[in-house]
Amino acid sequence: MKKITKYVIKNSLRRIFLYHSSLVRMKMMGVKKVFSYTLAFETGVTPDQVRKDFSEFRLTGNKKGGYEITDLLEKMEDIFHRNEVHNIVLIGMGNLGLALSKYSRFAQRNMNIVATFDIDPFMQKIRSGVPVYSMDRLHEIIDRFRVKVAILAVPEISAQAISDELVSLGIRGIVNFAPVLLKVPPDVVVNNVNLSDELESVIYYVYKIMKVDNY
Amino acid sequence: MKKITKYVIKNSLRRIFLYHSSLVRMKMMGVKKVFSYTLAFETGVTPDQVRKDFSEFRLTGNKKGGYEITDLLEKMEDIFHRNEVHNIVLIGMGNLGLALSKYSRFAQRNMNIVATFDIDPFMQKIRSGVPVYSMDRLHEIIDRFRVKVAILAVPEISAQAISDELVSLGIRGIVNFAPVLLKVPPDVVVNNVNLSDELESVIYYVYKIMKVDNY
Repeated sequence: MKKITKYVIKNSLRRIFLYHSSLVRMKMMGVKKVFSYTLAFETGVTPDQVRKDFSEFRLTGNKKGGYEITDLLEKMEDIFHRNEVHNIVLIGMGNLGLALSKYSRFAQRNMNIVATFDIDPFMQKIRSGVPVYSMDRLHEIIDRFRVKVAILAVPEISAQAISDELVSLGIRGIVNFAPVLLKVPPDVVVNNVNLSDELESVIYYVYKIMKVDNY
Repeated sequence: MKKITKYVIKNSLRRIFLYHSSLVRMKMMGVKKVFSYTLAFETGVTPDQVRKDFSEFRLTGNKKGGYEITDLLEKMEDIFHRNEVHNIVLIGMGNLGLALSKYSRFAQRNMNIVATFDIDPFMQKIRSGVPVYSMDRLHEIIDRFRVKVAILAVPEISAQAISDELVSLGIRGIVNFAPVLLKVPPDVVVNNVNLSDELESVIYYVYKIMKVDNY
């Protein structure tokens, strides 16, 4: 049995994204400086947590006078490697894959889907902003564009086999939309995004809230 | 300023979904019983964490002899309210909204998108498995189908205004795909799913891994 990945997306990193979103909004509102308790209030975490996360990611500043928002945003964008261009391949051009291939926000952050792939020749003909290749071109494209990251939007049944192939071709990070926990070597990171779980989590809380309401 | 929501998706709940996926796979492989350390190994958490999460969600069993997988799965599906039908509305029929409206895995878990909405009359004419209405029908549909949960796949600029409208019409839970942190009253839960953040998190780790490799 292969060992489960050592690299998992940490909650502290998830919170840095949360702080970043909040800071972007504050900046748009004309705010220049922020205190950890303001950022904590805006993102729904404790001020201690904000300071702890900032320390983990070496986000420094003058705590007494507040952090400069522009400075924080720049440092966060360095953490996210947003100034470098990242070439990405997308496997699986079903409904979700097609939507992801057209998702313009990736490119805004220098994440470029250079090619998409599908086993179905019909899917290879659908209109998309990026080329759709058959799977036998995977090796060539990954090499040519020095791709390290892949998006997997394939059916559950083929996800593990395709993941194995991607890893063997040098892919080191996978965002996996198939509802299956992929097994990868410890030096590969997988981020499993399960859309049904995301929706069902909300339903879980809605029941809780309505119970409190005596609904 | 409106208060930030009190209800956030807890990591323990996210782990229950993870355990569930792992148990489904074990069951398919013919396994009948599981120990917390096996489940921990399979999902990449510590056995202590598994036991703590099980206790929080009142997932009991004979610890010495292992947990019955079928029994655990049943209890988890009760937690997720998977035996009840949940009517859901989807707002925003762009590329992502269209893909979500066709996402068949929601219905497999009794989560039914009963109607979708868009401000654009052209979008209202695109082919989809579910009807696409104009926004002025929102009130009527939410009432008729007793909808409590909404999926928001609208542009960033209109997300907060539509969220406010949904809340005023009785929606208590929102899965938000717009890259903005929504402000909602404390008795409404929001799950912000930011696809760019999910992809960028993977890039963050890929850089870390390649640094370790002296790549």
